[in-house]
Amino acid sequence: MFEQLVNQLIYVFSVTGVIVFSISGALFAAKKGMDILGFILMGTVTGIGGGTLRDLLLDIPVFWIYDPVTMYLCISSSAFTYFAIKLFLQRDFWIVWMDAIGLSIFAVMGTQVALANDAPLPVAVIMGVMSATFGGIIRDVLGAQTLMLMRPEMYISCALCAAMSYVLLYTLGVTELLIVIVSFSAGFGLRAAAIIFNLKLPQFRY
Amino acid sequence: MFEQLVNQLIYVFSVTGVIVFSISGALFAAKKGMDILGFILMGTVTGIGGGTLRDLLLDIPVFWIYDPVTMYLCISSSAFTYFAIKLFLQRDFWIVWMDAIGLSIFAVMGTQVALANDAPLPVAVIMGVMSATFGGIIRDVLGAQTLMLMRPEMYISCALCAAMSYVLLYTLGVTELLIVIVSFSAGFGLRAAAIIFNLKLPQFRY
Amino acid sequence: MFEQLVNQLIYVFSVTGVIVFSISGALFAAKKGMDILGFILMGTVTGIGGGTLRDLLLDIPVFWIYDPVTMYLCISSSAFTYFAIKLFLQRDFWIVWMDAIGLSIFAVMGTQVALANDAPLPVAVIMGVMSATFGGIIRDVLGAQTLMLMRPEMYISCALCAAMSYVLLYTLGVTELLIVIVSFSAGFGLRAAAIIFNLKLPQFRY
Repeated sequence: MFEQLVNQLIYVFSVTGVIVFSISGALFAAKKGMDILGFILMGTVTGIGGGTLRDLLLDIPVFWIYDPVTMYLCISSSAFTYFAIKLFLQRDFWIVWMDAIGLSIFAVMGTQVALANDAPLPVAVIMGVMSATFGGIIRDVLGAQTLMLMRPEMYISCALCAAMSYVLLYTLGVTELLIVIVSFSAGFGLRAAAIIFNLKLPQFRY
Repeated sequence: MFEQLVNQLIYVFSVTGVIVFSISGALFAAKKGMDILGFILMGTVTGIGGGTLRDLLLDIPVFWIYDPVTMYLCISSSAFTYFAIKLFLQRDFWIVWMDAIGLSIFAVMGTQVALANDAPLPVAVIMGVMSATFGGIIRDVLGAQTLMLMRPEMYISCALCAAMSYVLLYTLGVTELLIVIVSFSAGFGLRAAAIIFNLKLPQFRY
Repeated sequence: MFEQLVNQLIYVFSVTGVIVFSISGALFAAKKGMDILGFILMGTVTGIGGGTLRDLLLDIPVFWIYDPVTMYLCISSSAFTYFAIKLFLQRDFWIVWMDAIGLSIFAVMGTQVALANDAPLPVAVIMGVMSATFGGIIRDVLGAQTLMLMRPEMYISCALCAAMSYVLLYTLGVTELLIVIVSFSAGFGLRAAAIIFNLKLPQFRY
């Protein structure tokens, strides 16, 4: 029963991550003045991009291929964003925060899936960071926008924080439910602080 | 014998799609003033990009890896474009129309391959759209050009139209030969109309 | 024992290729004024990009997934570049030459792995060229920089030269040790000459 609770939490997490990333991609399409199919395309590639790369690299079935629910989620979130655009008045605000939630969720999910497929610990961390950042990278590359991960405030650090917390607690033998909650909170908390207080790592000065 | 005819038609389709996409990529290299190897590289990635993504996602062998014919096609179409560039005086005209043919063909082929590999119907539609658009996306990203799918006139809609026609006729149990012809015609017809009459979906206005 | 020597040489080659590409990616991060995690991300994707694409296309396990050594190499080379940036005063000089070494190594490695997995000869050549160029392409796309392969002096030609030398000597039945050394030297020699003497293929003029 407890195991079931964990699986349900992970499923809810995964679904939430896909939805928030889809919305952030669709809002991006709004900035570019695209039509509804542009919203859906941008929302879908942003929503599934990170998890797709993760599954390709781990050589496991791509998570949305044999389960159409993910597609329905991406399409309906993107279409919702198109029709309810007035809910998202401050687009940049919403893009940044939806992206922050998605970033933390996918960092946790990517690490978890990598460990479940017997990847070594440092590879699991990298996989978490890649899953978390790749959807946003595709979104920004397609939109010919400066990559969000090139912004001065901490971004990759937050995905790394979530992924490393996961691996650390995992090696300590903590129960999975707690690992997921703590590592998500660590990543999201750091990102929230970075956005609000404009936290930066020391940048390269030459 | 009838089945054989269908397979031959599909093969001819696939070959034509690779050739026209290769030419559109090579013409792009002409716009950038590249040398002959640049033509071949741009032609090849555009020609095989969509089908490669499709095969990676479906976890089936990538179609050109164990069959060098595709490579010969890409290389010779690109080299032909380089030497016969005078045939393509109005480059943008040719890029757009070659791209339109390739778009419709790969939408049909992508949907067909996905269904043949037991993908659910909505996933097959997405796969058709991705196969159709991804080659052009790589071409435009490498060339740092505004993505063709971001242009105002209908583009994704046409791939979607072809893929949805395919799935619709497929569920109705229509014979494959007819499905391929009708869904290609639907996609190409819509794209041709969109180019000629500058058809647009309502764009986002805020 | 001789076979062992060949394997060791190939391993040293592979490691060197990852390191020099990581440094070239990290130097790129320096140009963009990123923080240390930006250095590591850019260094890592540049270091592993080409080999990752090669393994995905050939449907063999991605080389760094079950062997964390590659990750340690990427991370430590990138971090070293960050802290020892004063060693790389002329950044463009170092980026170009590190890239040249990596290009030649990965062209050789890509061709070798493709042949070892029974790819046809022309596909092995393409795979060599793709492995050699893809890491740099990701680096340049992420950094929104003009692709190095779009520069006027010969670049793809050098990867092609290494890959074709490999396939030619392979069909002639030359011993692997010699093939690796000769084809690397051919590719690197041509690239070095192209950089120093600004060698170009005839470019497209209209």
